Amino acid sequence: MKRRLKKSLAVIAAVMMFGFAGSSSHAADGLPSWNDGPAKQSIVAFVERVSAQGTADFVPVPERIAVFDNDGTLWAEQPMYFQLLFALDRVKALAPQHPEWKAQEPFASLLKGDVKGALAGGEPAIVQIVMATHAGMSTDEFDQIVGDWVASAKHPKTGHLYTEMVYQPMLELLAYLRANDFKTFIVSGGGIDFMRPWTEKVYGIPPEQVVGSSSKTSFEMRDGKPTIMRLPEINFIDDKAGKPVGIHQHIGRRPIAAFGNSDGDLQMLQWTCGGPGPRLCVFVHHTDADREWSYDRKSSIGQLDKGLDEAGAEGWTVVDMKVDWTRIFAFDP
Amino acid sequence: MKRRLKKSLAVIAAVMMFGFAGSSSHAADGLPSWNDGPAKQSIVAFVERVSAQGTADFVPVPERIAVFDNDGTLWAEQPMYFQLLFALDRVKALAPQHPEWKAQEPFASLLKGDVKGALAGGEPAIVQIVMATHAGMSTDEFDQIVGDWVASAKHPKTGHLYTEMVYQPMLELLAYLRANDFKTFIVSGGGIDFMRPWTEKVYGIPPEQVVGSSSKTSFEMRDGKPTIMRLPEINFIDDKAGKPVGIHQHIGRRPIAAFGNSDGDLQMLQWTCGGPGPRLCVFVHHTDADREWSYDRKSSIGQLDKGLDEAGAEGWTVVDMKVDWTRIFAFDP
Repeated sequence: MKRRLKKSLAVIAAVMMFGFAGSSSHAADGLPSWNDGPAKQSIVAFVERVSAQGTADFVPVPERIAVFDNDGTLWAEQPMYFQLLFALDRVKALAPQHPEWKAQEPFASLLKGDVKGALAGGEPAIVQIVMATHAGMSTDEFDQIVGDWVASAKHPKTGHLYTEMVYQPMLELLAYLRANDFKTFIVSGGGIDFMRPWTEKVYGIPPEQVVGSSSKTSFEMRDGKPTIMRLPEINFIDDKAGKPVGIHQHIGRRPIAAFGNSDGDLQMLQWTCGGPGPRLCVFVHHTDADREWSYDRKSSIGQLDKGLDEAGAEGWTVVDMKVDWTRIFAFDP
Repeated sequence: MKRRLKKSLAVIAAVMMFGFAGSSSHAADGLPSWNDGPAKQSIVAFVERVSAQGTADFVPVPERIAVFDNDGTLWAEQPMYFQLLFALDRVKALAPQHPEWKAQEPFASLLKGDVKGALAGGEPAIVQIVMATHAGMSTDEFDQIVGDWVASAKHPKTGHLYTEMVYQPMLELLAYLRANDFKTFIVSGGGIDFMRPWTEKVYGIPPEQVVGSSSKTSFEMRDGKPTIMRLPEINFIDDKAGKPVGIHQHIGRRPIAAFGNSDGDLQMLQWTCGGPGPRLCVFVHHTDADREWSYDRKSSIGQLDKGLDEAGAEGWTVVDMKVDWTRIFAFDP
């Protein structure tokens, strides 16, 4: 109630000062880490367009759905996806309970510190690592494991917590959109239950607005207590053509704005910008080898190739991290 | 903005009248169709308990998640599930494009008007009818088909639109919970895409807060346009033990309040009330043969048997529709 009262008083004050309760968008001065280039301008112009009451482009509040990829769009994804680093840490933590891993790939290589050798087995090896570390416990237990990890594990290059490796300009963008009555969702190829324990605190995005890849789960009584158990079986892969499917499944309406950074996001952007009325599709382009990483068409992680071509052809917005962002991480000088 | 201003002025007025911005719950006078019996009292007591700031039972706003079954809990489900009546209507509408149905069960019986004969094939027959009527079109097209049907089809007994067959006391309850900062979700065994086209208008529940059974879908380019197609394959059945699984998948946190009417909701209530802190579990009991229908332990639709026993054992709230509700439908005298 107190917060509501504060908001109310602020509105009253604004009305008294300006003599009207304006219908236009909240000012974009909430984007201090963005240079005033074409990327920022296209975002602000879009938000002002859909917020302009009485115009043909006005979008009612409930339809202001914005979707964000996570890895490489909201937080970094180098030298490899952070969830994979989590899985590797978990293999080490669980090794004492699995003496058989010493003689079993990909675990044997991993435990000898040979990550490259372990991952040489490709996708089957990764699936094995993920299943061994992400299944066999309750959802509550997994929440706790992830929460403990993000509170303590450090990024191998920067030494910062992974949840500090989020892009400051994107945090400002999320807040700016929400100030203009957008509902912000994550739509990530990463694990839905790997993200949910921390997205509300870090991004202001509650668990019910997180869409991601998932394992199958089952409801059962364990020691007489209702429990949801994580099974070693993939339920859904929220990547590429899976992203529009995940959006439809979870959100049930087409977003009007989508933000990604790789070809894994291309179909999400196609689906978003394929609808009628004003639409905003944005690729974050990793161009800053000094402050972050520089990669695109040939990267094995976060490859942006077809997407870059389509962005050019369709006139989508491409954020040049080096040029458009004055700061990348909050901890930058 | 106008609505926000009105709300603001109302809050200011309340503060001036009462001299404080209280932290307690919004008054329960928003439940005029509820008699002041134990059911209403248990609901109001729960809401006041979780809203009382500074107490051990206070629940922060983001965790105030309430889940509602749909068939038999928010709207009626007799003489059969309304979605099945929709499917039967669709079979008739599609028959000219399917001359083969004249010689093929369960369609042949249906087209002769013999519903009972068609459904004698049990679940396989129902699955056939649902697949023939719910798949093979885009999600946008299906939205339109459902929207047209709910705007025109009439209930065989009352002659009212199906969306008028919603329980007035439950509409008031949804609004009362939202006024106390609850986020309200539907968690139904019915089809997620059958509900979404109308739940926002009818219940104030937006598509992204609807959980239900689903078909598989695929993202594809159709005539160069990005399209999500509905496939004739079941993706998820959101019933019984599937309900906690669906809740975990879509919402990602455990509700603190759950409302159902049948054994299909039992696991949802177990999951909700199995958590720590204040919890509210409610069964709506169909006891009014005059104003609605009367059925429970032996009904083939909406059977409430184990649930009734467990409600007694656990002290859950049971709403006696005949006794607790002064009105059932808005169109009641």
